[in-house]
Amino acid sequence: MSIKVGIIGGGQLAGLTILEGASKNIDFAVLTDSRDSMASHLINNIYTEDSLDEFVAFSDVITYEFEHINPKILENNKLLDKLYPGVKPIELKQNRLKEKRFLKEYNFMTVPFYETKDGKEAYEIASELKKELIIKSISNGYDGKGQYVIHTSDDLEKIKEFLINSKDEFLIEEFCYFDFEISLIAGINNDIIVYMPMTKNIHKNGVLLYNFTDDFSMEIQEKAKAIVSRLLKTLNIKKGILTVEFFVKAKDIYINEFAPRVHNTGHHTLDDTEYSQFELLLRAILDLPLYHPSLKTQGGMVNIMGNIQLDKDLMKHIMLVEGAKLYWYRKSPREGRKLGHVNITAKNIDFAKTKIKSVCKILYPHQNIC
Amino acid sequence: MSIKVGIIGGGQLAGLTILEGASKNIDFAVLTDSRDSMASHLINNIYTEDSLDEFVAFSDVITYEFEHINPKILENNKLLDKLYPGVKPIELKQNRLKEKRFLKEYNFMTVPFYETKDGKEAYEIASELKKELIIKSISNGYDGKGQYVIHTSDDLEKIKEFLINSKDEFLIEEFCYFDFEISLIAGINNDIIVYMPMTKNIHKNGVLLYNFTDDFSMEIQEKAKAIVSRLLKTLNIKKGILTVEFFVKAKDIYINEFAPRVHNTGHHTLDDTEYSQFELLLRAILDLPLYHPSLKTQGGMVNIMGNIQLDKDLMKHIMLVEGAKLYWYRKSPREGRKLGHVNITAKNIDFAKTKIKSVCKILYPHQNIC
Repeated sequence: MSIKVGIIGGGQLAGLTILEGASKNIDFAVLTDSRDSMASHLINNIYTEDSLDEFVAFSDVITYEFEHINPKILENNKLLDKLYPGVKPIELKQNRLKEKRFLKEYNFMTVPFYETKDGKEAYEIASELKKELIIKSISNGYDGKGQYVIHTSDDLEKIKEFLINSKDEFLIEEFCYFDFEISLIAGINNDIIVYMPMTKNIHKNGVLLYNFTDDFSMEIQEKAKAIVSRLLKTLNIKKGILTVEFFVKAKDIYINEFAPRVHNTGHHTLDDTEYSQFELLLRAILDLPLYHPSLKTQGGMVNIMGNIQLDKDLMKHIMLVEGAKLYWYRKSPREGRKLGHVNITAKNIDFAKTKIKSVCKILYPHQNIC
Repeated sequence: MSIKVGIIGGGQLAGLTILEGASKNIDFAVLTDSRDSMASHLINNIYTEDSLDEFVAFSDVITYEFEHINPKILENNKLLDKLYPGVKPIELKQNRLKEKRFLKEYNFMTVPFYETKDGKEAYEIASELKKELIIKSISNGYDGKGQYVIHTSDDLEKIKEFLINSKDEFLIEEFCYFDFEISLIAGINNDIIVYMPMTKNIHKNGVLLYNFTDDFSMEIQEKAKAIVSRLLKTLNIKKGILTVEFFVKAKDIYINEFAPRVHNTGHHTLDDTEYSQFELLLRAILDLPLYHPSLKTQGGMVNIMGNIQLDKDLMKHIMLVEGAKLYWYRKSPREGRKLGHVNITAKNIDFAKTKIKSVCKILYPHQNIC
């Protein structure tokens, strides 16, 4: 008998989990309306909200690949009984303000922020503060969407009309000139918490462009692990995975945001780690053994985004880079859309960075971002 | 547009190729009568001999996961036009005697052998030789099937009746007390030949039990590469993959047998090599770049065979071994059948061997074979 796992969402995070589980006697179902997604190319068990009961009946255990889940789905009690890592992180993640308040309430260090009741107030507070800021829409925000960076009063005036007329709510964060950004992914099964190797992340225009394993000080590593561990407990997560992105500034580390799921910054683990973040998720929710997976080699990842067509020429250029592994999600290209990624492995960190630059320049030859 | 690859055969070699290609914009079809196979759990494009024309029409390129292909299939000219690594190696592999004669004709070093016209003559020649021998059926032989090891005249007398009454043909090989056995897998695309990392292979009862990357002398490596390269050219293979198993005795290396396809001894590459044998096959037949993939770390593999049920307890025991990765083919257990394998990775060879022994003992606790 196979084990049956249901995933809410059918994108690449579900897709890569399915590929990882396919050789482990696990059957999958996904809940998604989209046929233009990775999972729909891989399996037949695709359910929609109209067939939610069948999806729940199929699944021994249910997890999710994104947090912006239709609240109606979360009213299904049979689903909630099988859901890991549970509904609490979803509620927080669906509203940036709730997330920030929660972190503040439990004394997790974040960048200073200000609450506002609407766009008009956001504009007024930002005007008074006269600081570098990021104004963020509180809902539906991911991959840099709904974020407005204010370096000068001109930047603020440019979005004044938009803010005042907007029906969204906003929060204001002080802009942080951090030294670098890192991610740490942890898996939990009751008392056992384990960690994936940490990465340094490079964003462009608010979206992850590439990341890589790096030589982090023990102090940073231990601080990050302690925070992730406490956050897992504070969120009352019993089984599942939690990714936390941190800003590092001198010896301080601030939570930028967290995600109760596998994460873009963990894709590198498919090729450089003893087991991947996708296997970690499956181990955690299926009560399979957890241990701290070691790096097999140094590694990293470059996202493939935007209006890129994967023709044979592009495949050839990527596959010529030694240690590069191509992952293509089979979605339609669209401005800003994540279409795939390239993992790289290398004997040392410098070599890993060089390979990442090579791949980045192959993907984005005309943009000065690599 | 995706690339379309057809595979003759739907077992684990096809299945693992499909999983490797799934994230590279490649669509697969398999030609198989079996629904109790790995590929039938992964894709819907399953064709049989009755729908051979559709299989051929679907495929841009066709390859095979075994050589014992129904000759009727090989009469389809449209299929032959798309077939890599071609039909010549299949003809040789379908008949052990043809394979041996071919190797002898082109001066490839093999263990001394004797031709016989039938089982009766095989018995008579074996009686006269008074040596340790292996009597092999010339057709349908793989995984130790159709092989009879003769250490003593008693061993021979035990199969006398069988031989004399058999309708098979047989060849006789001198039994070789070699030091160890190795495999080397090469990929070719026209002028370019590249090699996977070499492994040492341990068989039990004529079937591969486990193998691992090892510290081979340059001399052995260069000899093996020279032979594989010459064999590729002699077989006139333009695009594809070739696995050669060698016996090593002091400084001599003898070809044991070859297979024009991905191979059980190459499964370890999924986890310890920059790209796997399955990706090598796809690169070779699809004109994608080839380079010598390096080991990311040391590694090895243990086969899961026979009447083993993959229950959760067994999964837990395997997944507790650090660096062990489970692959389960979802076939029905049956005596001697390969049902899955466990790859391991480790920082050094000694550690790899220790892990292999651990996994082997978990799988076969009551057999004294690990």
